[in-house]
Amino acid sequence: MKTVSENTCFGGTQGVYSHDSTATGTEMTFGLFLPEETKDGPVPILWYLSGLTCTHENAMTKAGAQAWAAEQGIAICFPDTSPRGEGVANDDAYDLGQGAGFYVNATQDPWTPHFNMWDYVAEELPALLGENFNIDMDRQGITGHSMGGHGALTLAMNLPGRYRSVSAFSPIANPSQSDWGRKQLSAYLGDDETSWAKHDASLLMADKGFDGPVLIDQGADDQFLDLLKPEALAQAMAAKRQDGIFRMQKGYDHSYFFVASFMEDHVNFHAEALWA
Amino acid sequence: MKTVSENTCFGGTQGVYSHDSTATGTEMTFGLFLPEETKDGPVPILWYLSGLTCTHENAMTKAGAQAWAAEQGIAICFPDTSPRGEGVANDDAYDLGQGAGFYVNATQDPWTPHFNMWDYVAEELPALLGENFNIDMDRQGITGHSMGGHGALTLAMNLPGRYRSVSAFSPIANPSQSDWGRKQLSAYLGDDETSWAKHDASLLMADKGFDGPVLIDQGADDQFLDLLKPEALAQAMAAKRQDGIFRMQKGYDHSYFFVASFMEDHVNFHAEALWA
Repeated sequence: MKTVSENTCFGGTQGVYSHDSTATGTEMTFGLFLPEETKDGPVPILWYLSGLTCTHENAMTKAGAQAWAAEQGIAICFPDTSPRGEGVANDDAYDLGQGAGFYVNATQDPWTPHFNMWDYVAEELPALLGENFNIDMDRQGITGHSMGGHGALTLAMNLPGRYRSVSAFSPIANPSQSDWGRKQLSAYLGDDETSWAKHDASLLMADKGFDGPVLIDQGADDQFLDLLKPEALAQAMAAKRQDGIFRMQKGYDHSYFFVASFMEDHVNFHAEALWA
Repeated sequence: MKTVSENTCFGGTQGVYSHDSTATGTEMTFGLFLPEETKDGPVPILWYLSGLTCTHENAMTKAGAQAWAAEQGIAICFPDTSPRGEGVANDDAYDLGQGAGFYVNATQDPWTPHFNMWDYVAEELPALLGENFNIDMDRQGITGHSMGGHGALTLAMNLPGRYRSVSAFSPIANPSQSDWGRKQLSAYLGDDETSWAKHDASLLMADKGFDGPVLIDQGADDQFLDLLKPEALAQAMAAKRQDGIFRMQKGYDHSYFFVASFMEDHVNFHAEALWA
């Protein structure tokens, strides 16, 4: 593991690190905020998964999360959204290939050798953090924005016991029924839609739900509402009697101005579960 | 108008009053909490509509609303749920007739002469309060529980501009598709289901929505979930991009212990809109 940068931030450290990933077969980069309290003992961790076109950097610089994480004494990790680099498959479209890993393990060519973001986020990166930082891996929460909200919700529901809480900002909520999803799931997983179900938050919610609290924020003026399909998730949460809150936020769009506006609520929501 | 009782309560007055109603052709009784501030000038008002089998008294004594209304300086009115008395039609079932007015104007015998709770709550009682108490009728909010949540939501969406905010505790959310609804709407309004649409919160939400904020609380362990159908309302709110919050509250049932637990949130939610 290599230190790319470390900056003091709200009394803690905002670091960027890179490492050779077994899961993706590439060098991967991630951001990690550690609060001051990590000097005294292991701290809980909140995962923040980013959306289409993002790297590890977007939320780390624009979401304002460190202020609240510092206040709550929890770490936040910002993984990248896909493998990258020469020799890694890509597509001209912004929503497929590099920057658009969709948090799945690809089974189809040309994606299969590198696009294993599920294993990377669920297994490899947590193990790496546990070995190298003073983090309590028994206290994990997960959130994300857009494609990252999809990732957070699908990881949380597929790995019961792993995360104590899950939240999302304007998640891609029903990708098996959306142009943000059908194209990518078909490309990465093939045309057998039965393999897609574990990567659709609304289907998972209807089937399994989540064994902990859920918080969803969606901007009412989001320019991508037709692609995100929040109503499918809202319906599934209510029908499942899921412990959770779904908030439609008047006037907000899909941007990081929206994410930043409600970051305090999300960090505090996770902190309550992580410190319980 | 006759004063039945007045009790000092959180610095204000909890009153019970009765009057001869034109809308129902009966004597009607209501509860009214007035905060201390009503002595200095007109105060906003929050309507609380009650559920099946309730009178004006249940919420007035069990919901703990006065504490928060006093803190916020707003009045709360607790109407009865139907006309009552000898000569008023009734049914052996708890969910039809007296105690079960469903906030409609009946068009069918034997209900039509007295069961006009829509006109009573929407028109006659507000006019009476405006004449007799120091209340600012330009600042109204409305809430309710179960059948009363149904009443609050349907009144609010059918009378745009009347209420600044609407909330509900475990409302009967989709009565045209529920045994809490089909029986009563058929009895009061007849079998032509087109006349039912304005009395179904989920259909109204899909069609009109509400021009203001909405807050819904639903207990996840509510024993009547199959009758309440919260998922229909959650879906409609999200699909409409309604400014609002839908909360599924883990561990709570349909009782007033649930209502009381979240009353502070609802009063504060309305107060914010009413004092804006």
